[in-house]
Formats: sequence, structure tokens, C-alpha cells
Amino acid sequence: MKKKSSVVISKPFDKIGQSRVIIENVSPQVEGGLYPAKRVIDEWVGIEADVFTDGHDEVSAVLVYRAAGARNWSEVSMKHIGNDRFQAFFQLERQGYYEFTIRGFINHVSTWQHAFRKRIHDNDQRELLVQLQIGLDYIQRIATKYAKAKTHAKKWITALQGDDAVQQAASTELEQFIQQFPLEEFATSFEKTLQVVAHRKRAGFSAWYSFFPRSAAQPGSDHGTFKDCELLLPRVKEMGFDIVYFPPIHPIGEAFRKGKNNSLNAGPDEPGCPYATGSKDGGHKDILSELGTLADFKRFIKKAAELDLEVAMDFAIQCSPDHPYVKKYPQWFKWRPDGTVQYAENPPKKYQDVLPLDFENEDWENMWVELKGILDYWINIGIKIFRVDNPHTKSFVFWQWCLSEIEKEHPDVIFLSEAFTRPRIMENLAKKGFHQSYTYYTWRNSKSELIQYMQDLTQSPLREYFRPNFWPNTHDINPYITQSGHEPQFILRYFLAATLSSNYGVFGPCYELLEHAAIPGKEEYLDSEKYEVRHWDWNHRNKLMHVIAMVNKQRNANTAFHFTNNYQNCFIENDQMMAWLKVYGDNKILCVANLDAYNKQSAAVHIPLDAIGKYEGQAYVVHDLITDEKYTWYGSKNYVELDPYRLPFHLFRIEDI
Amino acid sequence: MKKKSSVVISKPFDKIGQSRVIIENVSPQVEGGLYPAKRVIDEWVGIEADVFTDGHDEVSAVLVYRAAGARNWSEVSMKHIGNDRFQAFFQLERQGYYEFTIRGFINHVSTWQHAFRKRIHDNDQRELLVQLQIGLDYIQRIATKYAKAKTHAKKWITALQGDDAVQQAASTELEQFIQQFPLEEFATSFEKTLQVVAHRKRAGFSAWYSFFPRSAAQPGSDHGTFKDCELLLPRVKEMGFDIVYFPPIHPIGEAFRKGKNNSLNAGPDEPGCPYATGSKDGGHKDILSELGTLADFKRFIKKAAELDLEVAMDFAIQCSPDHPYVKKYPQWFKWRPDGTVQYAENPPKKYQDVLPLDFENEDWENMWVELKGILDYWINIGIKIFRVDNPHTKSFVFWQWCLSEIEKEHPDVIFLSEAFTRPRIMENLAKKGFHQSYTYYTWRNSKSELIQYMQDLTQSPLREYFRPNFWPNTHDINPYITQSGHEPQFILRYFLAATLSSNYGVFGPCYELLEHAAIPGKEEYLDSEKYEVRHWDWNHRNKLMHVIAMVNKQRNANTAFHFTNNYQNCFIENDQMMAWLKVYGDNKILCVANLDAYNKQSAAVHIPLDAIGKYEGQAYVVHDLITDEKYTWYGSKNYVELDPYRLPFHLFRIEDI
Repeated sequence: MKKKSSVVISKPFDKIGQSRVIIENVSPQVEGGLYPAKRVIDEWVGIEADVFTDGHDEVSAVLVYRAAGARNWSEVSMKHIGNDRFQAFFQLERQGYYEFTIRGFINHVSTWQHAFRKRIHDNDQRELLVQLQIGLDYIQRIATKYAKAKTHAKKWITALQGDDAVQQAASTELEQFIQQFPLEEFATSFEKTLQVVAHRKRAGFSAWYSFFPRSAAQPGSDHGTFKDCELLLPRVKEMGFDIVYFPPIHPIGEAFRKGKNNSLNAGPDEPGCPYATGSKDGGHKDILSELGTLADFKRFIKKAAELDLEVAMDFAIQCSPDHPYVKKYPQWFKWRPDGTVQYAENPPKKYQDVLPLDFENEDWENMWVELKGILDYWINIGIKIFRVDNPHTKSFVFWQWCLSEIEKEHPDVIFLSEAFTRPRIMENLAKKGFHQSYTYYTWRNSKSELIQYMQDLTQSPLREYFRPNFWPNTHDINPYITQSGHEPQFILRYFLAATLSSNYGVFGPCYELLEHAAIPGKEEYLDSEKYEVRHWDWNHRNKLMHVIAMVNKQRNANTAFHFTNNYQNCFIENDQMMAWLKVYGDNKILCVANLDAYNKQSAAVHIPLDAIGKYEGQAYVVHDLITDEKYTWYGSKNYVELDPYRLPFHLFRIEDI
Repeated sequence: MKKKSSVVISKPFDKIGQSRVIIENVSPQVEGGLYPAKRVIDEWVGIEADVFTDGHDEVSAVLVYRAAGARNWSEVSMKHIGNDRFQAFFQLERQGYYEFTIRGFINHVSTWQHAFRKRIHDNDQRELLVQLQIGLDYIQRIATKYAKAKTHAKKWITALQGDDAVQQAASTELEQFIQQFPLEEFATSFEKTLQVVAHRKRAGFSAWYSFFPRSAAQPGSDHGTFKDCELLLPRVKEMGFDIVYFPPIHPIGEAFRKGKNNSLNAGPDEPGCPYATGSKDGGHKDILSELGTLADFKRFIKKAAELDLEVAMDFAIQCSPDHPYVKKYPQWFKWRPDGTVQYAENPPKKYQDVLPLDFENEDWENMWVELKGILDYWINIGIKIFRVDNPHTKSFVFWQWCLSEIEKEHPDVIFLSEAFTRPRIMENLAKKGFHQSYTYYTWRNSKSELIQYMQDLTQSPLREYFRPNFWPNTHDINPYITQSGHEPQFILRYFLAATLSSNYGVFGPCYELLEHAAIPGKEEYLDSEKYEVRHWDWNHRNKLMHVIAMVNKQRNANTAFHFTNNYQNCFIENDQMMAWLKVYGDNKILCVANLDAYNKQSAAVHIPLDAIGKYEGQAYVVHDLITDEKYTWYGSKNYVELDPYRLPFHLFRIEDI
């Protein structure tokens, strides 16, 4: 053996010169590991990576993970799933952050055994003897490395010298022994440790119901109160929602107060827009006296909790010119030479009654702390869910800081981003920590639009960090497609939202009462509750409400609905029909929708049989969980027909015959 | 103004709290910046990034770059190309590495001017006066910041107080002034500096001609010599190739020498396989005496250079059992218990005459240095191009080190990776520094396969680092599709290689002489020159050789052929026909191929008019540079017809009428 020379190979090669394994394209990975991938507690996370080496030796890959802060790392051996890709899973047993990375090494012992098996057929006895000797050497090295393998190793050493040594060397028992005690040398570790965050389940599965508390008034009274709202809780529960969300409940400014239908001149008795927060009566930590007291609000939260309903508040960072901040912290606003502040805009919308905060102001640290303080205040009152108004008109780094600080102290708090804006901006807010995001669903109507959008959300990098929340309407959006007031259309758009996405919401009672009058040519409600108090017949019941209740019941009962990324499109031979699978373990759901709300449509639907564990020609039952009808289907291709005046959808559970 | 509080926002927010711009998805970027993107000298590199901010202020983005080692950075303002994506270009004026990054900031002055222009139509005189005052303030700040803007700023200050102040404020002249002197505050810098490497032109544009020098013998002599090869140089030049590549020219081992057609028992007079390098006469730095002397080889290189041809050598790191390394450095081989070394394999191929080096051996540093020494030796002789044999059976980190060390000393040296293996492995070798790579082109025959493969190569991340080299045959591969010996098929496969890819090669004279006899059922040449000396009629001329010469002439004359990533598929209404554009500046090439080498085919081809700068209905000329035929076409959709027995392709230059 020649003496080792003094040649020094420059870094980074001085340590890894003998390491031959490459690890790349590890997933999930958001922006190269800058942000965590999002999951929910109890979920199994699938980790994948390309792991390979030069030559033809076998590679072993190991997933290494732990809950952040845990002392020990766990390891699980990864499985080759083709094309040099390896996969393994681990379960998120607790809420919070998990860290993971991957290690790869050349498994010389496995390489030897696989080659040995092939060599048996060559019938070259001399070569087999050499190979047995090589195997014995490996087993010796295993015994040296692993104290607990010693006894076992001894047996193998005897076996590989016995009469049936060839059979023993090729055996699956020896394969298991080799797998159990790997001779790992010159391993490569992936250069980064990546993160997954496990949120509480509600972050991934939720049905929101929003309404204006001021419109909750009982007959005979003008302005709704929290006490009136209490009376509506059983109605929300009856429809099966999980979350009750209120637009801002704070004092409303008087300066530049908006009137009915967004008019610039409010009459003396008009209540103004709740998004113009702040008056002489207080700001974001105060309650509009017409709605009641803080005690009333606490009682409302308590009553909701008794029905297993959570209350979500609006977090709208902006101030009416009357907001106490304007006088107290003038440095937080951008003043113009004429002594005014330019009012807020979210083009084409103009908010003449609202002043924006200036996120470039020099006192930004105090402003950040004060804003977070608002959240802390309401969290202490008992709020754990916030819908954030126009987060895209506030600085991204503020959200990153604020949401991560809140998470440290209150990991249960969930934020929904109401950013209806350009894709990169919506995506970045999700990366910065928002748990859920409003989406373009509201404007995706045709089959191709819906399928494309679902694929964008569930089969692109978005799937790892952008959790969609589908709304068929909001208090800001009265979509053209339901301005017809046509009930089957409302049922259809509701069904799509509630079954395509695990998170969805409706703005009520406009939605379930089929309200559809619009400002002509616009997607805005006529006589919108944003600018006035409305009165509703809260006792009215209709078919849509019945459908909502039944669909929500099935969403809760079927785990497949608790996730969105398990969406899988099914080919259906009709441009007006759409079909998709959602599978979670044994729970297999097939949804079929007729997108034509005016005519009966029928077609053959093609089910990918491997996704439902059936083979071609096999019989199984599709059980409509809404109508309780059952059909026996055979193999992949089956007939469906949907009359929108009956129901524009099937919600099938796939069952064994 | 309130006193700044003592609140400290934790890192990383303490510095960037006021920075509102986000920069993401910067391209080109290979593996998050781990490797440089590859280009050639003089090329313009397009840099893109998503740059955006919260709210509705205007964002400016700046590309910052320099040649590595240069003292100063250059800056160029980026253009918004839609959907928050910005783009700028810089030219690679010298060979070697360039660094770049991106900076973004909110351009409040531009934001102000754009809003001002809109406000003019509101006819609100009071508001316009406020806005003029804001504009004046900005101009004052510009004057304070930029000494050289002072005089100019004074004029603007006067203008914005004059009678036509409104027109002046909205003017494009003021816009230019604002662009020239940006008020940049709270800028965000992309967190990484990325790299682009500019190789010499030959790395991106090359036509290889390979042959076995031992088959170059003139009539009457047995074994070809370098002197014989000299006589063939004009023939190679006549066909228009740039590079002459030889398989190994070193002493060939005698132990386990291969005979004719890969037989295991060579007769006493058989010459063996040149890939079994090393004998008592020497190793990788020596020359097989039958070919001539080192002086002969140097003379051959010189003669080639006189014709503007470069000589490429084979770098095949493996040793015959007779190689001097085996005795001198036994520690570099993996010895088995029976005192032998397992011969090399690249399944299904077995190389019984070759021993592999062990890249896990403890003396790896000396081995790396010795191997690089081989390259240094031949580089000093005058070789600047290496075809590397089976690089995927040697360690990736070795290549990364070796290629980067060679590059530091000899940036002109080009390496071609001969790795016909799994995708992740081929890709990683390219990342590690190989300038060109063999591809799956050899087995891509149908229209859909070819289009898909071209898209994979030119429209995926591969485009940044994997430079394809298309070979219709090699000395290892006699593809089934040309085993027919059908000349139009050879012409077609040649044309596709030479025009789809800027780098291509053929193994001659087998290819141009339409050699097609195969080992039955295999893609191997019968009587392959790998195992014997062959004799050819070097004076023969045929249609294919004429086509090769003409296509190579047009490749050189048309810059559009000097690149591969400019490939753009054109829809053509025939499954047997394929059409594609290559555009570089004013040079617009349209290729049309009939993939059916046995029947005439015709169809309408659709040209994307914006790619060639024409409008619908406009007349232009397509000029076939091979046949010199010219056709006047109108608009997008035109008729083409190709008879394979005449020529299976059109090579059109698009010209103005």
C-alpha cells in the first residue's frame, strides 16, 4: 500500500471525496426551505427525494425527522418508487413544527446479495465460492459494528459455510438481517434540514358561515345585537357549519361616513360601514355599542362554543379619520402637504372613509407591536380564528413577524387571508404564515376552469403551503352566475365549494336565502349590509338550506372530505359534467356534478380503478349519501344522469358489494 | 412625533421592517444557485424574477451583475413583462463566470406621476395643487440626493410652478428624469448571488465526426496510423464538421483481450478493444505504437488545426489488467478474497477486459490527482475537447472537482459526457460541470417522442445546465431505425440531429456510408471496429454526404442554428410531419421534416406569426437553403409537401418579400 501523499484536495471535497451518493429534489420543500410545508395534526407526511449514485451499486435512503425541540431524531428507511425516487412517511403526532432531512449511502451488502442471486444461474462454482467469502466478510463486519447483531451473525456465518450455503446466502431471511443492520459508510446527508408544520385540524377542514351581526335584529327592533345573534346560533348549527364569522364589530367613524349603497353622503341616521373602524368611542379593541357590550360578546362566544361553533373575527387594519390612533400616533400615517392623509384604495374600490397605515413610517416597531396587541387582546377574550381583511395592502414582513409571534404563544390561532389579488401576492401571504386563503373559485364556473384551478391548487408547489378556502359568495361579491336567483345554480355552486375544497364558506343569509339583486353591471349586492342594516326572515327554510345541512353532515362523516390535495379528476364524457374522487384510506368518495343548472345531463364517467382498489369488470356499489340511492357499478366506465331540478350532483361513497 | 420606543423586533425583522418588496423565483437558477447556469460568450442572458409589493405602489427592479472578480457591479433597470415578473438582459462579453442578483424598491415618484396623470381627468383643481406640491417635494429630494441632477431639478421646480404645471408634471420628459434619478428607499436585495458561466462558442455549437484511427489505413496496409488519418482530414472538412473525435489511442491490454464481435477469446493477431487501456507499453499517457508516435499525433492535431478542425480525445477511466496502475497503485482497486478484481460492467454490457477504479479507496486523493494529471498531459499536447466514456460509473464529486480544477487553468477545455443512463444521473453530471451530454435522441423516432423530448430539454430546468448533443448513431449504437440501410431514413435522422440541436455528431464512416449490418436483435454493429480493424472506401461519395455538407454549411451561416433553446414547435396537420422554428435576431429558420422515410407526405403547417414578426395575411418568402427553391407564403397557415426520395426535409430561411 502506497503511503498517503500530502496532496490536499480543496474544500468542499476534503471530507466527502469517498461519498458517492447524491440527494436532490427533496419534497415537500417551500422556496428552498425558507418556509415550512403545511399539514394538520395526525396527518402522515410523505417525504420524497431523488437519491442515486454512480455505477450500479444499490443505494439506501433514510428519512431522519423529529418534532422541533425533541431531543432525539427518528429514522425510517425509504422505499424506491421508481426513477431514482425514494419515499417514506411519518406521522405528525403533535401540533407544531417538525424537522426532517435525508441521508443516503451505498448498500454494499444488498448489492452483493442481489448480484449473488443472479449469479446462482451462471453455475460457476468457483465464482460462487468467492462470492460466499465476500458475504462472510460482510457478516463479520456487521457483527463487529452491531453488538446486538452478534449472535445472529454467528448463525449466518455457520450457514454460509454449510451445505446449503448458496440457498442461505440468497435467502430473504438474510436480506432482512442485512436491512436491519446496515453497513453504512461514506453516507451523504442532504445539505438542509427542512420543516413541516402541523396545524390543528380546523386549519385544514372548516365550513364558515358569515353574517352581519347588525342584521340579526328580531322583528320590531332596528339594529341587531350579540343577543340577537345568540338566537341565530341554532340555525347556523342546523346547517352544519363550524365557524361563525363577523365583519368588524368595532365603533364606526363618522367622518366621510358611507351611506346606503356606498354613497358618499350618509344621512344622519345611517350606520356607516363597519370597515371604517374607530370613532370617539374607541378603536380596534372596542365594541360598537349598538351591538352590545364586551360581556355580551363573551357570552355569544360561550353560547357558540356550547354548540361546538367557533367565532371568527375580522382583522381589518385601517382607521376611520376618527380613530384614536390618528391623534395618538400621527407618525403612523403619511401626511400630505395640505395636512390630510390620502384615503385607502384597493382599485377599483375607493375607501373614502378609511385611512391606511404607512408601513414605511419610522415608528414601525411600535406600530407592529400595537397591531399585534389587538390580536392578543381578542385572543385573550377567546377568539382563535381571524379573517384578515385585505392583508395584501399591508407589508408582507409585518405578517411574517406577527403571525409567527402569535403562533409561538397561541399555536391554535388560525388566520384566513382575504386577498383577492394577483397570484404571486396571494401565494406570498400564504408562505408568510396565513393558514387559509380566499381563492379565485368565486369566478371559476366552466368545467375546464374548475379542473385547471383544482390542478393548480393541488398538483403544483401551491399544495404545500397555500390552503384554499372556497366561497361561492362573500359580502363583497355577488357573482354574476348566481345573480339569476336560480336555486339549482345556488345548490351547484355551494356543492362545488363544499366538496372540492376541505375549507369553504358562505356569506349568509344572502346565500341560503337566494338573495341576488345586484348593483347593475357589478358583482356587488344591492342594498349591501356593508352600508346599512338589513332585516331577514330568519325562520324561512328552503331546499338549499336542506342540502347545506346534508352535505355538511357528510363532510364531517367522511374523512376524505377533510383534505383538499387528495382531489383527483375523473374523465366524464360530457363538457357540462364534472367528476372527481377524494380518497382517504378506506373512505372513497366520488362526486359528480352537472354544471348546467338548467338542463338534464348524462354521460359515462370513467373511474381510475387503481385509485379505488377495484379491477376492470369488478362490481361495487356507489351510494349517494344525500338521496340514499345505491347503484351497482362494474369496472371503470359507468352511466350517470343528473337533473338539476332534482339535484345537480351525486355525492357517492364507493362501497364494496 | 412620539419618541421611538425601546421595543425590539427580533431578527430578521430588525433591519427590514420598512422594506416592503418581495423578490422570488429568480431565473436562471440551477438547484437554488448551487451550480451556474450555462451560456456561451457574447450571448445575452435573460434574467427574470417575480418582484412585487403589498398595496398598489409601483415597484422598480434592478439587475445587478459583474464578471466574477471584476471590481465594479453594473446595474440595469428591469422591465415588467406581466404578472409581477420582471426581465432584463446583460451580455457575456468575456469567457468565465458572471455573478448577478436583483434589487427591488418601491418607486414612490413613479407611483405619484402615474396617479397624477389619472387625476387630471377628475378636474379637481384643489387636489391637483396638492399633488403638484407632492411632486415638487420629490424633485427637491432628487436634487438633494443627486448632485448631477441639480440643474435639471431646478428647471422642473420652475416648470411645476408655471402656467402649464399640470402638463409638465404629466410629461414623459419628467418621467425620464424620474427614471434617471430614482429615490430608492428600503430596497430589498435578493438573498443570493447567482452565477452564469460563459463557455467558449464551441461548447454550444459543434458538429462532431468520430472514427477509429486504426480503420484509416490506406489500401494495402493493415492498421491505420495517424498519418493515414491526416489524409482523411480534407474529407471530414468537406462534410463540414468541426471536431474529429477518436476513441482511445493508448496501448491495449492483452489479458482477457476481446476478439472480433466481442468474443471472449481473441486470436493471437486480434488487436483488442481500445477501451481496455494499458499494457506493458504504458497507460493513459501513452500511444498505441501501431498508430504512430506522440510526434505523429501532434502533427495530426496541427494538420487538423490548419483546416480549422479540433481533435477530441476519449477519456476512459478504466484499466486493462495489464495497466501499469494495477501494480503501481493496487490500493486503487477493490480486491476480492481470491486475489482478483471484479471486472467492470455497465449492465447489460460486461467488460471482461477492464478493471474499474474504486472511488471509495482510502488513497482517493492521490488517485484524483493522477487522473486529472492525464487530462493535464493531453491538454499540454494541444487537446481541448474530451469525450468522457461512461462518466456515470465514476464518482460525481470527482467530476465536480476535476472539471472545476481544469476550468480554472484551462477555461477553453470542453467535456462531453457519454452517459446513456437514467435521467437523474445524466442531469447531475451536467450540473457537475460537463459542457455537453449525449442524449436519448438516438431512440426518439416518432413525432410525439421528438416534440416531447425537445420540450423536456428546452423548456424545463434542464435548459439552464444540460446541453444536449444529438447522435443518430455511435460506435456503441447502431439503432434499429437505420438498420434498414434505407438512405432517406439516414438523411432524415441526420437532419433531425443537426437542426434540432446545436450540438450533434455522427460515428463515421458507418453513418455516411449507410453501414447497417447488426448483431441480430441488437443495436450493435456487426464486425464493430471496437473489436477489429475495418477497411473502408474512403473515396466513395453519396447523396447523404452531400446533404451533410450542405446542412453543415447552413448551420454555420445561420446563427439561429448556434443555439438549441430557441427551438419552437409549429403545429402541422399530419402525424408523420414535424415543423419547428429557430429564431435568433433577424435570422429566422423554419425546418419541416417528413418522418415517414418511405412515402410522400403533405400538410398545412401553422407558423406562429409573432415569432417571425409577421401579421396574418402578410406575404413573406420561405427560401429552402438546400434546394434554393423559394415559395411565397401568406400568413400563418401554408402548404408543404415532402417526398423522402427527393429530400425528407425543408430547411427554410424566412425572408422578407
